Amino acid sequence: MPNIRGIAASAGIAIARAFRLEHPDLTVARKQIQDAEAEVAKFESALEKSRAELEVIKEQTLREMGEEKAEIFESHLLVLSDPELIDPVIAKIREEQVNAEFAMNEVAMTFVEMFENMNSEYLKERAADMRDVTKRVLAHLLGVKFVSPSAISEETVVVAEDLTPSDTAQLNRTYVKGFTTNIGGRTSHSAIMARSLEIPAVVGTKNVLDLVQDGDLLIVDGLDGEVLINPEPHVVEEYRAKQQRYAEQRAEWAKLKGEPTVTPDGHHVELAANIGTPADVAGVLENGGEAVGLYRTEFLYMGRDQLPSEEEQYKAYKAVLEKMEGKPVVVRTLDIGGDKELPYLKLPKEMNPFLGFRAIRLCLEREDIFRTQLRALLRASVHGSLRIMFPMIATLDEFRQAKALLLEEKEKLAAEGTPAAEGIQLGIMVEIPSTAVMADQFAKEVDFFSIGTNDLIQYTMAADRMNERVSYLYQPYNPAILRLVKMVIDAAHREGKWAGMCGEMAGDALAIPLLLGLGLDEFSMSATSILPARSQIVKLPLADMQKLAARAIELSTAEEVVALVEAQMRA
Amino acid sequence: MPNIRGIAASAGIAIARAFRLEHPDLTVARKQIQDAEAEVAKFESALEKSRAELEVIKEQTLREMGEEKAEIFESHLLVLSDPELIDPVIAKIREEQVNAEFAMNEVAMTFVEMFENMNSEYLKERAADMRDVTKRVLAHLLGVKFVSPSAISEETVVVAEDLTPSDTAQLNRTYVKGFTTNIGGRTSHSAIMARSLEIPAVVGTKNVLDLVQDGDLLIVDGLDGEVLINPEPHVVEEYRAKQQRYAEQRAEWAKLKGEPTVTPDGHHVELAANIGTPADVAGVLENGGEAVGLYRTEFLYMGRDQLPSEEEQYKAYKAVLEKMEGKPVVVRTLDIGGDKELPYLKLPKEMNPFLGFRAIRLCLEREDIFRTQLRALLRASVHGSLRIMFPMIATLDEFRQAKALLLEEKEKLAAEGTPAAEGIQLGIMVEIPSTAVMADQFAKEVDFFSIGTNDLIQYTMAADRMNERVSYLYQPYNPAILRLVKMVIDAAHREGKWAGMCGEMAGDALAIPLLLGLGLDEFSMSATSILPARSQIVKLPLADMQKLAARAIELSTAEEVVALVEAQMRA
Repeated sequence: MPNIRGIAASAGIAIARAFRLEHPDLTVARKQIQDAEAEVAKFESALEKSRAELEVIKEQTLREMGEEKAEIFESHLLVLSDPELIDPVIAKIREEQVNAEFAMNEVAMTFVEMFENMNSEYLKERAADMRDVTKRVLAHLLGVKFVSPSAISEETVVVAEDLTPSDTAQLNRTYVKGFTTNIGGRTSHSAIMARSLEIPAVVGTKNVLDLVQDGDLLIVDGLDGEVLINPEPHVVEEYRAKQQRYAEQRAEWAKLKGEPTVTPDGHHVELAANIGTPADVAGVLENGGEAVGLYRTEFLYMGRDQLPSEEEQYKAYKAVLEKMEGKPVVVRTLDIGGDKELPYLKLPKEMNPFLGFRAIRLCLEREDIFRTQLRALLRASVHGSLRIMFPMIATLDEFRQAKALLLEEKEKLAAEGTPAAEGIQLGIMVEIPSTAVMADQFAKEVDFFSIGTNDLIQYTMAADRMNERVSYLYQPYNPAILRLVKMVIDAAHREGKWAGMCGEMAGDALAIPLLLGLGLDEFSMSATSILPARSQIVKLPLADMQKLAARAIELSTAEEVVALVEAQMRA
Repeated sequence: MPNIRGIAASAGIAIARAFRLEHPDLTVARKQIQDAEAEVAKFESALEKSRAELEVIKEQTLREMGEEKAEIFESHLLVLSDPELIDPVIAKIREEQVNAEFAMNEVAMTFVEMFENMNSEYLKERAADMRDVTKRVLAHLLGVKFVSPSAISEETVVVAEDLTPSDTAQLNRTYVKGFTTNIGGRTSHSAIMARSLEIPAVVGTKNVLDLVQDGDLLIVDGLDGEVLINPEPHVVEEYRAKQQRYAEQRAEWAKLKGEPTVTPDGHHVELAANIGTPADVAGVLENGGEAVGLYRTEFLYMGRDQLPSEEEQYKAYKAVLEKMEGKPVVVRTLDIGGDKELPYLKLPKEMNPFLGFRAIRLCLEREDIFRTQLRALLRASVHGSLRIMFPMIATLDEFRQAKALLLEEKEKLAAEGTPAAEGIQLGIMVEIPSTAVMADQFAKEVDFFSIGTNDLIQYTMAADRMNERVSYLYQPYNPAILRLVKMVIDAAHREGKWAGMCGEMAGDALAIPLLLGLGLDEFSMSATSILPARSQIVKLPLADMQKLAARAIELSTAEEVVALVEAQMRA
């Protein structure tokens, strides 16, 4: 059988038996029943069994994979106890004299459809939760087996149509050696999860699930994006060798852990990590990160039903600062809205959430939320080297307003006798074209820039990066992007400030030569990319990269830029 | 009573008695009925009465306001005959033994909610149509009077919460001297309609409807955005004088109709008009337009259930070219998607339609649609001075692909013996930041640029211009926008090409001095803005405006730019 091509979503090679993760046929028909109360009892029993099952999975996940992963089952349990779901099902059984499966499915799907039409990522996740839970209950009602990924207890490669958040949360690294899916891309949920768990993965194969049987021997090559089914023994040997070479490369990288990142001609840049929670700091240090370049504070606000208190936030910020032992930590203030919603803020639905009321726009209107975060940050600042960064800044006015609020809170704290560090660097994300174009004016007032390429690219190209029909326009190598990046870096340097980058692009092997050449001072990426990036940069002479970058920005298309860089890398 | 402040939405002064346009109380309760067939008959009779009424209104509108305005009632009539609406109502009456009002309202509101949740401007209009029609039918069922704006037959100022598309379509210019509303902004539907009808209007007053009684004497000052209720006679006299001065100013402008647009120091620019249909050409010529700078071809595709044929398109393009008698006509190829949908294309729903699959992105995938339009344009090109413009170009590749398709169709036509003009100018809209940043590369290949500021501003600032919560970021005067405009114009001139602008900004009195100073060659605006713009430009020395623009782009905020221009205008 020819190799199956897909998207290399997470590096490494996995060789193990296939485990098809498929959900059983849970189609239900409407049936008229005689004894409604017996049917209600059957429904309640299925609920009870599902709850018991989920409790076990939750405990197991908590033990083996930590609190964050276990939370998804907490959400499922909440759904199972939600009277807004349960009561209408029971009412339907009684009023319409229908079977429990049908009633459950009808009510749940009404919610799912409603949630999915709401244009909110948060509600879409709730819809996914409800789908998961409904399947579990239906399986009990129908008496069919419902496979949980958490039930996997031998070394396998998981093969699936796609993995839901709930599936990936249940993957146990000890047993799941790799996975491959029919759908998904490099930035899909399951791909990001695979990289964070360091599980090799190939996604978007279109048809792997159709070709693989349970127990087939699979090779998942997450380096080159290939899947091999029942390969010949000599092929298995080749891949074991490739696996070994990759392990050696990783060992090589590991040696660079404590090293500075210096080009052969003596230019130093800083390699930093993007994190979401204090628990992520361990990975940053293990992977030789010199700083946290982006601490996304959204996680503090998500998966709960009210705002986090100043004290809770203070503890989280303090924990990160202390664990980083004096290394710089750039904390981004709340970047909520767009695809990240907080249901308890009851934000209005928007037609174009990526162009909407989010991040600093929201914080400047909801000063109560913003001031609480700023106070927590100021209080934590004495525990390490804190830098504060505002997201989605589009105008100088916004930066000035945000800075004024910070200074007000600092003064209030001083008046209360609460200390805060002096000289906290104050910077902005550059992710909106206007801000890149106006970087010279901003550079006079900010202490640093961090270029957020994910958003900057989507706004500059006017293409939603989540929308597959326009994904060809998500072009990090478009000369327009390189020119904006250059404007920002040059503007920073003219005012003696530094410029970093915290988008996907900063850790991309093809982009790094260009960014180095454009003069980027700080590269912030997922922790696992730091050592590969360092091993690359220590071989790239700055002078050559400067020439490369100068040529790239005079080209006319992204393809030409990629060809230029690839030619240079081969030379 | 103090003057009421609102937003000056359409210039001019109206003085007339108030006509409160309010829809009656149409709340319905569920009632159990005995004779379902009698109820169905009642429902059918109400439908019949509504149809008859709508036929009359449609004819009247057709006679007095033309075909386009009458089409809305054609849509209403279609709704009234739609079995997808009618059948479920009748079924509900029969099955649930409920009153017709309740059944009609329930069914219609289900559709309305579904349409409104679809995130599609087209379906939102369908929802509005259905609301309108439902109200009319309910009024008949409830036996209450349903006020149609078309029933107005004496000189009035219309006062309303807001005006729906159906309301504005029915406004008869002969009688409706002005209008004022509680809600809406300068770019809301009713405001645009008022400018196109040249009816003075003040919108967004928040409370005018609460303060005005039928028959009150009202002054609507669409120049300064004020409404006066029952003013003293001497105040009325003042406003009659102001009305007179405005009429004189318009007469003054009219004298410039046949004149070229030349600054005192001898620099000529072209003032062109934006149009949507061949019928709009008359207004362009009446208002002294030197060209059509933007012919939006979307109208050919909208309000119908299939694509327009090549022949239909050819006739429309030919009509515009012929009526313009050799003056240049820039035709923009299909710019559909985003907020402009075509239901018969069955495009998938998108999370961020403004960043989605639209305009050239769609045309390059749906070559069948695009090639038909290109053939129609090429065939029409022999009837005047045609220029073709591609919308939403983000990369050079897209332009090259579009151009290649045009050349292919031209060759095919030549092979068929069908002539097309030689040397048709081929240009692009510059409305995506990447294209502005890369204008130097584009200028080597295109014949002209037309800057689409509405979109360019929203992408550059990452702010949906339809979203009120971020409307403060819709900043035409932000120096970032001016810098991008400058990049585009400079790039064009370096390659000997011309640069125009066809967004709202091109006709804005505050922007014109800056755009002139930046070197803009062509200003395309609503026809009614041309003469005011010309009268402004003939007084502005180019050299001074160049200095002004040079200072403006070095400022840091939009407020500073506005202050600078205002100071210059006063000087």
